[in-house]
Amino acid sequence: MKIDILTLFPEMFAPLEHSIVGKAKEKGLLDISYHNFREYAEKARHVDDEPYGGGQGMLLRAQPIFDAYEAIVKNSQPRVILLDPAGKTFDQAYAEDLAQAEHLVFICGHYEGYDERIKTLITDEISLGDFVLTGGELAAMTMVDATVRLIPEVIGKEASHQDDSFSSGLLEYPQYTRPYEYRGMVVPDVLMSGHHENIRKWRLEQSLRKTLERRPDLLENYEFTEEEAQIFQKIKGDIE
Amino acid sequence: MKIDILTLFPEMFAPLEHSIVGKAKEKGLLDISYHNFREYAEKARHVDDEPYGGGQGMLLRAQPIFDAYEAIVKNSQPRVILLDPAGKTFDQAYAEDLAQAEHLVFICGHYEGYDERIKTLITDEISLGDFVLTGGELAAMTMVDATVRLIPEVIGKEASHQDDSFSSGLLEYPQYTRPYEYRGMVVPDVLMSGHHENIRKWRLEQSLRKTLERRPDLLENYEFTEEEAQIFQKIKGDIE
Repeated sequence: MKIDILTLFPEMFAPLEHSIVGKAKEKGLLDISYHNFREYAEKARHVDDEPYGGGQGMLLRAQPIFDAYEAIVKNSQPRVILLDPAGKTFDQAYAEDLAQAEHLVFICGHYEGYDERIKTLITDEISLGDFVLTGGELAAMTMVDATVRLIPEVIGKEASHQDDSFSSGLLEYPQYTRPYEYRGMVVPDVLMSGHHENIRKWRLEQSLRKTLERRPDLLENYEFTEEEAQIFQKIKGDIE
Repeated sequence: MKIDILTLFPEMFAPLEHSIVGKAKEKGLLDISYHNFREYAEKARHVDDEPYGGGQGMLLRAQPIFDAYEAIVKNSQPRVILLDPAGKTFDQAYAEDLAQAEHLVFICGHYEGYDERIKTLITDEISLGDFVLTGGELAAMTMVDATVRLIPEVIGKEASHQDDSFSSGLLEYPQYTRPYEYRGMVVPDVLMSGHHENIRKWRLEQSLRKTLERRPDLLENYEFTEEEAQIFQKIKGDIE
């Protein structure tokens, strides 16, 4: 996969090198570049200007972003992602979709806004969530991390995805590691039993219980197995 | 405000210094520290171990996090935030709530999980969204950015919050800056008119229209002014 990031702050992306992105690059599975579109600005690095019609704040101008885009994207047809609070909310399904792409371009705006004409370059407007950030950089890093870890072979064991919250559709069950007793708190007996089938059932019940308590919305479209449906009826009986 | 971040990767937080966090520190409004809890691990920096009951992945042990927490938090009663996909979803209202706190502690987990007993330290389990990240660091940075910019006096003009998406409850209207014509695309006439009242009305209509099209959920609890209610009826008439 190839990723190009257009930003006024390329130095902000350093942490990605410590994350899964660094590993993906080492394995030759990812080619990621950061481009400061200030370098493409005509007229003395002039990247922002006042809004037509008046108002607070400075808007990113179209020209530096168009010219940077055209310098970077030549013979490919990338997904071009604008980070914008009005976009579609990013989630695991979106990450899985982006992980299929050969080429992604991220355009990082600034919270004060940008010239609307930039949108003619865009294929995807995405929001990280219903909150306001200083700029698109942290949102882009987060989406890159969530996406790159889904590229086949980036994470060693395929299996490690399958226990993820949101991959299974249920929240994760509680986990414990050594020591058995810590500050008076002990590990549940079933996990110490060595009885694999009981452990599996306990974990499944815990996952279902936690999902029902905290995120019943995740269960609305969830396809229960017969076993899950039985456990779920029991949990609902306990609650009533 | 005081913020302490417990993480295995303190170097990942460098980008925050470029963001609003750097400005808040310069103004003396924020004291933020990063603590590597590996340094608190007994037994040769041993921070993770296998799950009881079997399974993939390594879990963060309770001991280094408890000991780091106790070394940092002495006479205050901070909000203690665990970044976890099963937590409450972070949004602007949550950021506004955190911005009121005197002391925040963020505990960054790892996607493979942690010993459940860590939760006895926690006041808030928060999720950035329905997706899986390699670790809690990018989520913590994002939440810190969204929160710190809401501390009074961090952003110069109070006014600059008020146009934010999610602060007004509506998505933002389209904006344009110079030049008037770019690659054949021109700025809407109304914005060139100099007629402030028409500009205000056009922007309000655009905001309402965009919110209705893209995020009708935001309108469910929205308190319309009389003017907004009238414009909204007209928009709905146009659509039908």
